[in-house]
Amino acid sequence: MSEQIDLLIHNIGQLCCVPAHNGGPQRGHDLGDLGLLDGAAVAIHDGTIIATGPDDELRAAYTGAIIIDAGDELVTPGLVDPHTHLIWAGDRADEFEQRIAGTTYQQIMAAGGGINRTVKHTRAADLNTLVEQAKQRLDVMLAHGSTTVECKTGYGLETATEITMLSTIALLDMEHPVDLVPTFLGAHAIPPEYADDPGGYVDVVINEMLPAVAGWRADHWPDTLFCDVFCEVGAFNLDQTRRILEAAKALGLALKIHVDEFESLGGARLAAELGAVSADHVVVTPDEDIQALGRSDTIAVALPPTPFGLGHADYTPAHKFLEAGAALAVATDCNPGTGWNENMQFVMALATRYMHLTPAQALAAATINAAFAIDRGDRVGSLEPGKQGDLVIWNVPTYQHLSYRFGSNMAHTVIKRGQVVHRAS
Amino acid sequence: MSEQIDLLIHNIGQLCCVPAHNGGPQRGHDLGDLGLLDGAAVAIHDGTIIATGPDDELRAAYTGAIIIDAGDELVTPGLVDPHTHLIWAGDRADEFEQRIAGTTYQQIMAAGGGINRTVKHTRAADLNTLVEQAKQRLDVMLAHGSTTVECKTGYGLETATEITMLSTIALLDMEHPVDLVPTFLGAHAIPPEYADDPGGYVDVVINEMLPAVAGWRADHWPDTLFCDVFCEVGAFNLDQTRRILEAAKALGLALKIHVDEFESLGGARLAAELGAVSADHVVVTPDEDIQALGRSDTIAVALPPTPFGLGHADYTPAHKFLEAGAALAVATDCNPGTGWNENMQFVMALATRYMHLTPAQALAAATINAAFAIDRGDRVGSLEPGKQGDLVIWNVPTYQHLSYRFGSNMAHTVIKRGQVVHRAS
Repeated sequence: MSEQIDLLIHNIGQLCCVPAHNGGPQRGHDLGDLGLLDGAAVAIHDGTIIATGPDDELRAAYTGAIIIDAGDELVTPGLVDPHTHLIWAGDRADEFEQRIAGTTYQQIMAAGGGINRTVKHTRAADLNTLVEQAKQRLDVMLAHGSTTVECKTGYGLETATEITMLSTIALLDMEHPVDLVPTFLGAHAIPPEYADDPGGYVDVVINEMLPAVAGWRADHWPDTLFCDVFCEVGAFNLDQTRRILEAAKALGLALKIHVDEFESLGGARLAAELGAVSADHVVVTPDEDIQALGRSDTIAVALPPTPFGLGHADYTPAHKFLEAGAALAVATDCNPGTGWNENMQFVMALATRYMHLTPAQALAAATINAAFAIDRGDRVGSLEPGKQGDLVIWNVPTYQHLSYRFGSNMAHTVIKRGQVVHRAS
Repeated sequence: MSEQIDLLIHNIGQLCCVPAHNGGPQRGHDLGDLGLLDGAAVAIHDGTIIATGPDDELRAAYTGAIIIDAGDELVTPGLVDPHTHLIWAGDRADEFEQRIAGTTYQQIMAAGGGINRTVKHTRAADLNTLVEQAKQRLDVMLAHGSTTVECKTGYGLETATEITMLSTIALLDMEHPVDLVPTFLGAHAIPPEYADDPGGYVDVVINEMLPAVAGWRADHWPDTLFCDVFCEVGAFNLDQTRRILEAAKALGLALKIHVDEFESLGGARLAAELGAVSADHVVVTPDEDIQALGRSDTIAVALPPTPFGLGHADYTPAHKFLEAGAALAVATDCNPGTGWNENMQFVMALATRYMHLTPAQALAAATINAAFAIDRGDRVGSLEPGKQGDLVIWNVPTYQHLSYRFGSNMAHTVIKRGQVVHRAS
């Protein structure tokens, strides 16, 4: 007698399970274990994967209330985007034009542009406006196969707006099929009113914002909440970063750091030392810091759309991280300044060409390792029994296509917790 | 009394007309004249644009049988893709993986891969298979806003299959809303059976293929038909290129040349000398050849997805071409080897970041100049009275967004000859 279940997806040409390794991410040169099965099926009940295996075996074992024919195409876990600045107000497309024409970012900032312009518009926007605008971008992410998305605050830079941004994330998480994972990034930039007193702003982050965030969390978010700092010349130095993160850790927040995007201040080593869940950007990370990450449980998150968006030539030296035994993930870094893009498929196209990951490594970095980079590795990122039923049926026959082709959307059907939440027209 | 017309598109936030200059392309530093109108409308009758202008004036002057509200968003001409290898059979995604892992193209060729693999599968495919597979890619192009697309043969490399590829183009042109412009590219590569006798293959192209192509054209294509040659080390040298193109010209074909992708053989200067409509790739073109193009009517067509697809750092030095007064266009070069991509929006994202065109220049290069690069500048590429009613209503407010954002599809409604042929879901 076959077992009654909610959903059976069968006739899968190629199934990528992308398994966790020993309950953790795929580390070092083990990155790229896709757990491939040809001619497979996936059984889902109560939103949870209960089995993956050969098509004929699962069709004999299970009867689905809903049965989806994958058309002999590729199925992978839902993509996980572990680093985004999804929520903002205002339009900065004109600054892109100025940048191409040779205006420097410093000149754009001096004329009232840059991140402070986004901060100004975000502070002026109400919750509904922020939710509506972010929802459009989240729809695009979902349509491109992302089913879990990290999202940072950091365009408020004052307590009230930072809390409004956290509320925006919580609302989107409730209302939208995509799961959101919130990160407090009050230390994203020095706001204009503290331009001459950066230390004073750090005090505000520690003494006013962090307690408010912890209070918000107690009322609204019974799950991991991250605190992140942009550790970079012109933003927060290593000592300020440490002070903020130690205070956050004492309040029970998990840690992330933006490190080594343009210059290295030692942030990657600090991430390893403090047990941060991830260290993000990692473009100019010194060899000894890469070794420190390799010995730690901190995930290195590369953001290849950022150098692409800026037209820069320097990308995360992925193979050094693999050599060091580090766990590497990739993300969009979707934001209005350096790169407005929602598409994790394109991240894989970049990661293969500019970080020299194989298509298999890029897919693992965009699924299981991305999930561990936001402390969701126990729930999403792979197709294994007990995990959420989050997966994508693609318009392509094999995983290589996901990085080989670029510029279009190859996702056909996106399934979240066993429900079809997007289907290509 | 207002005039009855087929279609009125009103409430256009920003209209880019992208006018021709003196009946020709936008040359040199004049590139980027978008003919911007805010608060505009477009009137179309019998598939042809009859007026563009201020919203209130056109709404007073015309009554549309169909009225489309552009939602205060951006409207541009339909994009024109002037260089594609859209038609092929077989799958080469695995070769991309091998390339990333360090296998050279020469090793891939030696193992039966590369262009000869596409040739083998294309020769084995029947007309219906070729039409069906190319149609899927053409659907993606249309959904991304391309309304006119050039398409090359060149995966037959024997007379019968080359003619089958021309028939595929003609069938697609009839059956699909996108207009196709055919190019005979028998001189794409030396086929394996002539590996030891390239001169013999050139003779076949001239003495057997070209007459067959001219005969096919007389029966099936009463419009411009191009002949193209891949003038490059390992393909066809300058003398062979000249012989083929002179023979083609004598048969009434218009000319194109693939030049200077990896090494310069003098193909760009030859293009100018022979009055070719376009010289394509133009990455390593010497300064004196750029000057020759600047003095000629030959359009320089840059293909930025090709270096991107290969992970190379060298792109067409666009500003040298503008300095020289040349007319510059851009295209996808969609093909199964170096870059499978259908999206002209992404071409603009690359052209701004890696060729340093402004967003306005990139849009003009993807519309009016692209139209002249395939001898359709009199019919498409701009929104001017008398031109075809080909346009795109975008999901964005201003033209800068088309290059600023990347990785997603910003086209909302695509209109071809005054008919809605695609609408985003």
